[in-house]
This record gives sequence, structure tokens and C-alpha cells, in this order.
Amino acid sequence: MADCFGRYLRVTTFGESHGPAVGAVVEGLPAGLEVSLDEIRRLMDRRRPGASDLVSSRNEPDRVEVLSGVESGRTIGSPVALLIRNLDARPEEYRRTRKLFRPGHADFTWFEKFGRMPPSGGGRLSGRETAARVAAGALAMSFMASLGMKVRGYTLSVGPVSCRKVVPEFAEQHPLRCADPDVASEMTDVVRKASSSGDSVGGRIEVVAEGVPAGLGEPVFGKLDALLAGAMVSVGGVKGVEIGEGFRLCRLKGSEANDQMSREGFLSNRCGGTLGGISTGRPIVVRLAVKPTPSISNRQRTTGPDGEDADLEIHGRHDPCLCPRVVAVAEAMAALVIADAAIAQRTRNMDGYYYFFGPRARNGPPGV
Amino acid sequence: MADCFGRYLRVTTFGESHGPAVGAVVEGLPAGLEVSLDEIRRLMDRRRPGASDLVSSRNEPDRVEVLSGVESGRTIGSPVALLIRNLDARPEEYRRTRKLFRPGHADFTWFEKFGRMPPSGGGRLSGRETAARVAAGALAMSFMASLGMKVRGYTLSVGPVSCRKVVPEFAEQHPLRCADPDVASEMTDVVRKASSSGDSVGGRIEVVAEGVPAGLGEPVFGKLDALLAGAMVSVGGVKGVEIGEGFRLCRLKGSEANDQMSREGFLSNRCGGTLGGISTGRPIVVRLAVKPTPSISNRQRTTGPDGEDADLEIHGRHDPCLCPRVVAVAEAMAALVIADAAIAQRTRNMDGYYYFFGPRARNGPPGV
Amino acid sequence: MADCFGRYLRVTTFGESHGPAVGAVVEGLPAGLEVSLDEIRRLMDRRRPGASDLVSSRNEPDRVEVLSGVESGRTIGSPVALLIRNLDARPEEYRRTRKLFRPGHADFTWFEKFGRMPPSGGGRLSGRETAARVAAGALAMSFMASLGMKVRGYTLSVGPVSCRKVVPEFAEQHPLRCADPDVASEMTDVVRKASSSGDSVGGRIEVVAEGVPAGLGEPVFGKLDALLAGAMVSVGGVKGVEIGEGFRLCRLKGSEANDQMSREGFLSNRCGGTLGGISTGRPIVVRLAVKPTPSISNRQRTTGPDGEDADLEIHGRHDPCLCPRVVAVAEAMAALVIADAAIAQRTRNMDGYYYFFGPRARNGPPGV
Amino acid sequence: MADCFGRYLRVTTFGESHGPAVGAVVEGLPAGLEVSLDEIRRLMDRRRPGASDLVSSRNEPDRVEVLSGVESGRTIGSPVALLIRNLDARPEEYRRTRKLFRPGHADFTWFEKFGRMPPSGGGRLSGRETAARVAAGALAMSFMASLGMKVRGYTLSVGPVSCRKVVPEFAEQHPLRCADPDVASEMTDVVRKASSSGDSVGGRIEVVAEGVPAGLGEPVFGKLDALLAGAMVSVGGVKGVEIGEGFRLCRLKGSEANDQMSREGFLSNRCGGTLGGISTGRPIVVRLAVKPTPSISNRQRTTGPDGEDADLEIHGRHDPCLCPRVVAVAEAMAALVIADAAIAQRTRNMDGYYYFFGPRARNGPPGV
Repeated sequence: MADCFGRYLRVTTFGESHGPAVGAVVEGLPAGLEVSLDEIRRLMDRRRPGASDLVSSRNEPDRVEVLSGVESGRTIGSPVALLIRNLDARPEEYRRTRKLFRPGHADFTWFEKFGRMPPSGGGRLSGRETAARVAAGALAMSFMASLGMKVRGYTLSVGPVSCRKVVPEFAEQHPLRCADPDVASEMTDVVRKASSSGDSVGGRIEVVAEGVPAGLGEPVFGKLDALLAGAMVSVGGVKGVEIGEGFRLCRLKGSEANDQMSREGFLSNRCGGTLGGISTGRPIVVRLAVKPTPSISNRQRTTGPDGEDADLEIHGRHDPCLCPRVVAVAEAMAALVIADAAIAQRTRNMDGYYYFFGPRARNGPPGV
Repeated sequence: MADCFGRYLRVTTFGESHGPAVGAVVEGLPAGLEVSLDEIRRLMDRRRPGASDLVSSRNEPDRVEVLSGVESGRTIGSPVALLIRNLDARPEEYRRTRKLFRPGHADFTWFEKFGRMPPSGGGRLSGRETAARVAAGALAMSFMASLGMKVRGYTLSVGPVSCRKVVPEFAEQHPLRCADPDVASEMTDVVRKASSSGDSVGGRIEVVAEGVPAGLGEPVFGKLDALLAGAMVSVGGVKGVEIGEGFRLCRLKGSEANDQMSREGFLSNRCGGTLGGISTGRPIVVRLAVKPTPSISNRQRTTGPDGEDADLEIHGRHDPCLCPRVVAVAEAMAALVIADAAIAQRTRNMDGYYYFFGPRARNGPPGV
Repeated sequence: MADCFGRYLRVTTFGESHGPAVGAVVEGLPAGLEVSLDEIRRLMDRRRPGASDLVSSRNEPDRVEVLSGVESGRTIGSPVALLIRNLDARPEEYRRTRKLFRPGHADFTWFEKFGRMPPSGGGRLSGRETAARVAAGALAMSFMASLGMKVRGYTLSVGPVSCRKVVPEFAEQHPLRCADPDVASEMTDVVRKASSSGDSVGGRIEVVAEGVPAGLGEPVFGKLDALLAGAMVSVGGVKGVEIGEGFRLCRLKGSEANDQMSREGFLSNRCGGTLGGISTGRPIVVRLAVKPTPSISNRQRTTGPDGEDADLEIHGRHDPCLCPRVVAVAEAMAALVIADAAIAQRTRNMDGYYYFFGPRARNGPPGV
Repeated sequence: MADCFGRYLRVTTFGESHGPAVGAVVEGLPAGLEVSLDEIRRLMDRRRPGASDLVSSRNEPDRVEVLSGVESGRTIGSPVALLIRNLDARPEEYRRTRKLFRPGHADFTWFEKFGRMPPSGGGRLSGRETAARVAAGALAMSFMASLGMKVRGYTLSVGPVSCRKVVPEFAEQHPLRCADPDVASEMTDVVRKASSSGDSVGGRIEVVAEGVPAGLGEPVFGKLDALLAGAMVSVGGVKGVEIGEGFRLCRLKGSEANDQMSREGFLSNRCGGTLGGISTGRPIVVRLAVKPTPSISNRQRTTGPDGEDADLEIHGRHDPCLCPRVVAVAEAMAALVIADAAIAQRTRNMDGYYYFFGPRARNGPPGV
């Protein structure tokens, strides 16, 4: 059950990095949801390697085939199976490294878990697996869009370079998804320099969900922020997550941290759009710590199943910085969590779905 | 299903802050596990209010009654139901605040979700609910202990005061669970000052699990760190989480971040004990951001279901800093996640359970 | 997870026959559902031993304490915990039998599974456990009632005596739940005779759910009839189940078995109210095979953990026929399955919940 | 979640009858299990149409492509995705019937559920879907075989013709899977006659699992027989299920129904291999009621979404008797349930897996 994500909207993914295919089965989408193959393609392209010299040169077209659950462009209530063939797999490139545990990778832990080395390129624990998440996330985004919700992410920092402002449209165009035009070239330099010196670099990502109505998320283990945190850390390379002001709140007093309210709504959004794990109606804000790509060509000390000391230099097609690719995956995971919570909310009241802030919305919401 | 946590080891909790009781049903413990009521009591006492002037004066004995699943001090394979009566509930103290949304609390979001105000004191979203988690966690800790694993947590910082070293035994005795004797009195002062000025203060907590064998955790949505992250953020007041070096990794290069290896094992533990979401055999390290207690007596702006602007001062029995109480809850959640993964691992190989680092362990694992 | 039942409406039960208590935690009920303690009591009384000389003389008041999830007589959206103390437990009566495997009971299989004998009276696998199901089912019935649905069961045959007609009101009053006044005394005689000769007797039960709208149940593993079948066989002593005409359909031709339709609806209901596992809007009909009570005072050959041959006569407080008690449990299980499906249906369409047969209903569904 | 089956061994199926493909994702298989494509093919062929004039002439090669989770002929611990293309789909044949509700089919109920007609040929609720179950079941059977367990099924009766003895090897060769050579030609005649008169016929199937050790299955909602019953009724056309003597037990006394024991083991197997829902070590016996194929060319009364009365004759490629095809599916479902229980059993004891009957087995079993 560890390859399955979500509760009412459930995604089961499968596939290894250099096997025949990766894919996902998405259960629980309401019947009648419009599904656009173009939109799926657009979102797949955002994640896709080969888009610039700042990411791996593995060239996967990532064409998504919809095997089931959709007829005449709409869901029919059955599970939607999504298939993505691996066309540029080159397992032979991993021949040497398969005898050694690559530092920072899951080779050693996989070996300890299963008693054998993982398949080429990390197999199931390669970044390749996230293609299936993005495809599934595209369906969740369509559901969100039907209710006026939207998710977007961008890179907030790389190594020592941090954005000072956020221009989402700029991020959309920039190969690193850098959110600030003023620091973009500096950020690019950091990545290029790491790459050319056989190294890699980490960074931070922010994902924001807008239009999310108040009331989504469930006490106590279905809290929206808890599910988001778990979802984000399930993405390879993510080692930390914050909701709203996150770690900055530790240094504040209650009077500084609380978001006070007036009849117009919240006066601030330090909580990042959730209180008690339930959405407030304000934007949901999540930040991720992304570690540097573990595959580097610099020499590293390691060992292998035979228990001998060894040195290792990893050559191949690797991203010097994971951030741009993780942006698309983090958006997808956020969409899956929020769409799931929106579907769940349909079951939570005897007399309807939502109650909104202010007299306007008291008249009752449509749709969800 | 949002009140249920875990996969192979499953905990369902119930209960409101000022209702008759809170409790938990724990499914999936192997038969024959020794269960010590004294140990449960000891762990409940760690979380318990009334232990010092730094925490709420609500006085709950938190006696845990074992209703099922245990005979002659051992589990029998049936679900273990744990019942904790609420004896010091005072719902009347919340009469005034129930007409207003308390800033930083889930009153507003609960109202938007369910169309009515939550029960007194936050009901299900009160800190009271965590008593059930600690009781369930005590069983998970017994299971961990049977395999040589142990979890411990402590406060790493409060407001601006941070520990510079960690002395677990000291933390155990200190009412704030402060890990560093050298900064303990300064930390206490910060909390006292916040309290006396009608305010509260946030902090950071660290939880470490030792003795965890390599190989626990599942690709891709059952990663140990992902489950830990989700578990931690499901605790009220936690707004961020890091695994290992966490957000510090964002500023590093791959050559600085990777944990290299020799035949003796890992040369560092920056990853915090997981690679690819699977345990490495090194200590598992998780850090939490805890926001300041939202209940403060300082005046705050707010509104209520009637849509009128109002001012609110909250008086009552509240902790000025959540950290010492969250320590016990975070330990419990870590234990539930890790015990779950250890049980899951029993099902993952055709020919046995574990493979350990080094020739010694090749001879085969014990118990799990 | 084997002590948990349902998907959207989830029940976790706990408790052993001669332990302190049995109980249930019910998750997923919508907020605002009216909960009547009197109704719970009435349903508990239907299942309860001691009601006549035809059932066990164990005298349990079966008072249900609601520990959480209800305020002012309505659900609040949190899990509802239900506690039933065991007050007439007499574990000492089982002292002798605990050294032997009682034929027809789970003593041997429990021993093989867990390596030790089960607790007194079968522990978790005693009929006592079903008290928790009936209490949980009472909540499901309240939900069903709010939508105009109703479940009722009765005994259809005992030993060789079969009902030739069904008078539900009569069954309600009869201690064996016999549905046919004309055969009731004959049926009673069969049970008395079995009892007085140290034996027991089996029978058949029918459960009918009325008012269930078309459209409940999910392809392919969430079929309403599949869930009902699994639910029924999970009740101790039930060894067979039929939907609609069931085994009689095996002997028919398609032209005889199909339920044809006109614009007025179905012309027959041989399918028992489900097609493709989805409700048709006609009554849902399920029949159960109940084996004779395994506890009999006649001498039986057996063995025990020590591997010696032995003879066994079981004396104690046992029902000579399980049917009247199973009726209440089967109704509860049917209610849990159908209420679950009704809640699930809320999530299945983009544009609303239900579509009904005929032009009248096109105007739109009520509540669910 | 209704397209997902199992707990520790989990199968998610997808695909419509006349869409691009059907398939399954199988999670939870231990790493290192040998997977034989030839064996999968052999089992697919057993279910496959086109094998004789007694089944539909739809000609699907049913080649199973393994997309993931297997390397060098063994499972690696990742989910195994199985893909079966629909190559002989002819949606146009359903053009006329798509305007009417086919009696005995799920057209009406699907329409009521989702507000639109199902896809051609019943879409998700067609027998085509079971190809995915058989493919997944083949993996479960491999797991069972590794522990010495085996499942086999056969047709026990068709219309009025019943087997008087069971010769499994004969059933294996017979196109109807008839178990008794003496009645086989009579049985064939019944099917031919029904077919030639534009009709169809029902029957009964028996599935037996041998080599299943004692101790599999979980109280109280994970009982082996309850899961088997639910699994069987989830197969299209199955309207009843019995365990062991099933409905015959209703007419017996306890002294006749109980399986007594000696030190050698059970003296009979009327319970069908489960007591308290846990396996006894004796063969597990399940019987199914299969209704006549609903698609018949005889004229039937019906209606459609437009609410007009209509007559319908269904022509096309349909089986006159579902039994031979259901045999393969029922075997697959039994294998999935039992393999799941065997994996679950690995987690149920502190000190090992199984305890067996008799002194021999006390030394402890390997393997599971």
C-alpha cells in the first residue's frame, strides 16, 4: 500500500527508471470531469528533462496514454490509468555503479531492505517515478480548476541565492523556475558553476494554492498541512517542509504569530492558509527544502555489497539542481492533496458542503 | 478515515477536549508483546499538564484503562483499546469565547467546515486529543524496545534561545525539556516573561530514534521520512519539519551534503538516517517548528459567526509554550511510524526480513 | 486493519467476550446527524441475550456509552466512540474448556494462529463482539432513516421448518424472529427439542433494505452485493449468503432470471436489488445460512494443545439457535454497508448526487 | 478505493471492455518471488474466450505485458503493473443497445449512478474486466505455490445437471470445466440447447484451496471466509456463495455440523476449512451461484434513458453460460485472498509465524 497515495482521490503509481514504463492509476475522480490531454502534456513538459542545459539530457517525450476511465473527454467514474513509456532508458550506463552504493542515493538502503541492489538508476526510487505523479496531478488540477482553485510553484532559492520577490509569470518561463528576475542570472550562474566543477547544488521551493475555500482538511490525521507535508517529503530529495511562516514562527510570540481577523476576514496569513489543519480560505503556502543532487562526478568514498572500500565518480545524465523539476512534482502533490480534501468535504455534513466567510457566501456555494 | 493513523500498525483516536473521554484503538500489534501499564503511565506523565508552572494548570490524572487486547500483560493479537477519562473538563470556561473565533485556533475553520462552532476548548482539535496519541505511542515504544530501538525528544530552542549542545538526561528532568543545561534558565525566563505579559512563545523540538535497523520505510509514498513529516505536522501547533540537516542542505553542494561511506559504514549522518525514505541504520533525526500557543490574554481583533468585529482576551489554563508537551507527542508519533515500518518490513522479502551492514549481520537478523 | 470495516463510513471494533468491555469507533458520519440514545438502546435490546428461554441466559444490560463525537444529540463530524461494559462476564466457567479445542469453535485455529489459546469464551471471536457492531449499526440506521431507507431482518427457517410467508411485524415480536405466524410454534419446538437434548440447530435469515435509491455501490470491488456478502460472512456462524434469488438462479435460464423493465420500472426483483453491484432502487434482499451453535452439551471428540485425545461436553450459557441474535447483527451490517455506499455516492459525480428512475425524480434528489 | 482489492497484497484494476486496455497494479508482493510469464499466459488462456463454441467468439489474445516490479524473472519489491490490450474491441456492435437498458445488466444502475449510459459493452462492469483479476491472481498463485498451496476450481452444475463426483483433471480439459465425466455431455447439451434457443443458463462452481496452513485469516472483519465471500460476489454474475457445507448446515444440528477432532486432526471438514474465519489446515471449500448470462437474443421488455417502453433482442458475442469463464476468475480471487492472508500472518506474532497441528510441525515452519 506504500505505492498508493490519497484517501478519496487515490493514486497508485508504478514503474522503474529504466524499465518499460512508469504510470499511475487514479481512482475516485467524480464522473463528468473534463480531462484535457493538452493540459496533461503541458504539465508533463514542465517537469521534463531536456528543457535546458541546466537539467539532465535524458530525452523522454513523456507522452501520456490514457488507458481507461475517460470517454469523449470526460471521466466516467472508473479509474483513470495513465501510461508513460520509458523510451530513453539506458540501463547499461549504470553497470559500474551497480556494484557500489552511490552516496546520497538509496542504493545501500534498498540493498539492506531487499537483499539485492536496486534496478538501474535507482529503479523505483529514481526521479523518473515522479513523471507518474505529475500525470496524476494534472487530473487533480483539472478538478481543482473546475472549482476555481489553482496551484503554482517556483524556486525560491538555490545555494546562497534567494529571491527577494515573487513574479510567478517570470518563474514560469525561467529554466530554473526562479521567481525573481533580479536574481535569476546569479542563480543560473550558481548552478552552472556547480555543474562545471562536477558538483551539484540545493535550493528551496515554494508552492501556493489559491482559491481554496475554507473548510478543507480533516481532524486529526487528515489535516491539510499534515498531508501536504507528508506528500512533499515523499518526493525524492526533499528534506524539509514548512507551512506558512514555518520555522520563523518558532522565534515569535503568540501576539506576533496569530493571524487576527475582522469581519472582512484574516488580517494576515502567517499560518499559510490552515488552522487546525483546515483551510482558512486564504492561500495555502508550503515551502520545501531540496537537497543537492546526490549524483556528482566528483570523487566520493563509498563501499558496496562486497564490503570493500572504493572511490566513485558518477558520470551520466544528471540534473545539477533538482529544483526546477521538483517544482512540477510539488505542484502535482499539492493538487492531489487538495483535490482529495475537496472530495472528502462532500461527505462531511448532513445539509450541504461548505460554509463561507461573510454574508455573501452564506447563500451557499455551488459545485463542490 | 482521518482519525486513523498508520498502515500495518493502525491507531484510531477519538474524543473531545471537554467531552467524557479521549482514547485510542491500536490494531496490528503482534501477539505476545509485553505491555507495561507502568511504562504507559510514565509516558503519560511526561506529557501531562500540571507538572510545573510553565504549563497549563488543567489537572488531569490521565489514567489509561486498557479495555481489550491484553491478557496477562501481553498482547493477544486483538486490537488494544485505551480509554482516558476527562476528569478536569470545564466547558463553562469557554462560554464567552464560543461566540468568537479565537485567533490562531481552528474555531473559524471548524465553523466553515461543519457549519457550527466546535465544542468547548476546540473539541477534537484541542491539545487534549494528543493524550490518546501518547498512550498509543507507548505501545509502539514497547514494540520498538523489543527490537532494541528507542525514541527520545527534547526542546532545541524557545524564542531566541537555542541549545548549543544536547544532554538528553538533562532534558528528561527539565520542565521545558530543554536539552542544554547552560541555556536552561535563560529559556525558562523567556517562557515566564511571555506568560507574565499575557503572551506566549514558540520553539523547536528534535526527536531522535536510535537502534533503528537499515531497511525500514517503503518506496514511494511510504517513505519513512515522509510518514514522519506527516505525523509531526498532524500534531497541533507544528508548522514545519526537517529530516537530518533539513533546510541547511539547501545551501550546500552535493559534495558537502552527501554522506559518504566506508566499509565501516556512513562517515556522517546529514541525511538524518534515511536515504530514499528508507532507514540507513544511523539515528533518525527529525526537527519540528512549534508555533507560539495561540491562546493569549493580550487583546486581539477577531470576529464570530455573527459577522461582527470584536476584541478578545483569552483567560484560562493555557501553556505559555507548547514545546514541553509536544515533545512527548512527537516521540509517540515517531514511535508509531517506525514500529509500523518495522512490522511492514516483515512482509517485504521472500527469504527473511533484514539484511544488515557488515559481515556480522549477514548471519541473520533476530526477532523482527 | 482487520478490525476495521467500511470505507467512507468506517467502524473499528474492539473487545473480548470476558474482558472489561467491547466497543466501536465510528468514523465518517456527516456532521449534524441526529443520534437517539433510545434508538440505540432499542436496537441493542433486540440482539440481547436473556430475552427468552430460547437464548443464552448471560445477562448483559448492554448499556452503550457515547464517549465522543456527539453534542446536543447530533454528530459533530468527529469519530463517535461507543463503549459497552461487560458486566456479566464469567471467565472461570471456561477454565476446563480452555485446555481443549471446542469443536466448531475457533479455539484450534486461534491457537495455530497466535501460538496460545484464545481468551475465555473465544475472546475476540465470541458472539459478544457483535454487540459493538449493533451499536455502530444503530448510527448507520439513523443515517439511513434520514434518507428514507430502512433495514429489517427475520428468521426464514430453523432446522427443517421454513416460513411460507413473511410478516415482519410478527417477527419483530417473536423470540426467534420467526417471520411466519403459522410455523412459529413448530419452529420454537425444534429449538426447544434441540436444546433439551443437549444439541443446537441452524437456520436461515433474510435481511431486506427498503427505500435504497438506485445508484449505490461501486464497480468493481465496491459492489454493494459483494460488500454485503463479505459483511454477512464476517458474522460468526454465517456460512453462506445469497443475493436475491441466489442459488435458485443457477437452475434458471436467462429469460427466466433477468428482471425485465417497463417505463414504470422493474417487472420483478429476482436480482435482489442490485445489478452490476449497484442498487436498482428496488428492495435489497440478502439471505444468510447460519450454522447450528457449536457449543453443545452432547459429548464430542476433540484434542488440545497437549495433543491428547479427549471427550468434551460443553455446559454454560449458550444459545441453542443463533438465528434470533444474528438477525440484529445482520441488520446492523447491512446498514453499515448501505450507509457507507450512500456516503460514497456523494463523491461520484461532478454535477450532483443521484439520478432517479422516471421523470419525477429527474427534478433532483433530496438530501444525500 | 472501490477498484482496489486486498490489504497487504493489494490489487488495483482498471480498464473498460471496449477501451484501449485493461490491467492491474499489484502491490505488496515480497521481493524475490519467481514470476513466470508462461504460467501467467497459461492461466490467462484458461479464462479466455474463443476456446470453444460454448463461449463467446470474441477473440482476445490476452497477452500480459509486465510493465514494472520484475527483474530477471523475480519480483523486486515494487508494484507489478500488468497491461492487457483490448485488440478485438468492437464498440460499434453496442450502438443500438446503448439507447436501452439491457435487462440483467448494469446499464440502468450505471445510468442512475453516473447520470449517463455506461461505455460500450458495460465498460467497467463487463466480464472483460476480469482478465486483469486473472493476471493479478497468477502472481498470487505463484506466491501460494512457493508455500505449497494450490487453488483449483470447476463447474459443479449447469442448469439442472449436477456433478456427482469431482475429477479435477477432467474439469481441466473440459470446455465447461465440468468436474464429472459422467455428466459432461449432458451438461454440454444443456448449454448448447440454451444457446440455440437464444437463451442462456446458470450454474454452480466450486473452488478448493489445498495446502493452506492453519492460522490464516483475521478476526473479525478479516475472516478468511468473509473475504472469500466478498471476493466471489464481486465477480460479475455471482449471486451467492457458500463456505463448506454452507446452506446445508442450516438444516443440521450442532452434533451433526461440528467437525470433531482427534490427535490426528479434524475428523471431517463440513466447515470448509475455516473456523472463526481462520484456516484449519484442511482444504478451503467455496461454492458459487452463477446466474445465467443476461445477454440473450430472446426478446425482452425494457426501457431506456428516454423513458419509453421498448423490446430488445441482444445479438453479439456472448457466452451462453458464464461458468467456465468464472472458474478462472474465482480461482484468481481465492488466490488473492489467501496470499494476502499469508502475508498478513507474517506480522501477527512476536516470536514467529505459524504453529501447526501435531508434534512434527512444532519445530517450526520456514518460509511464510
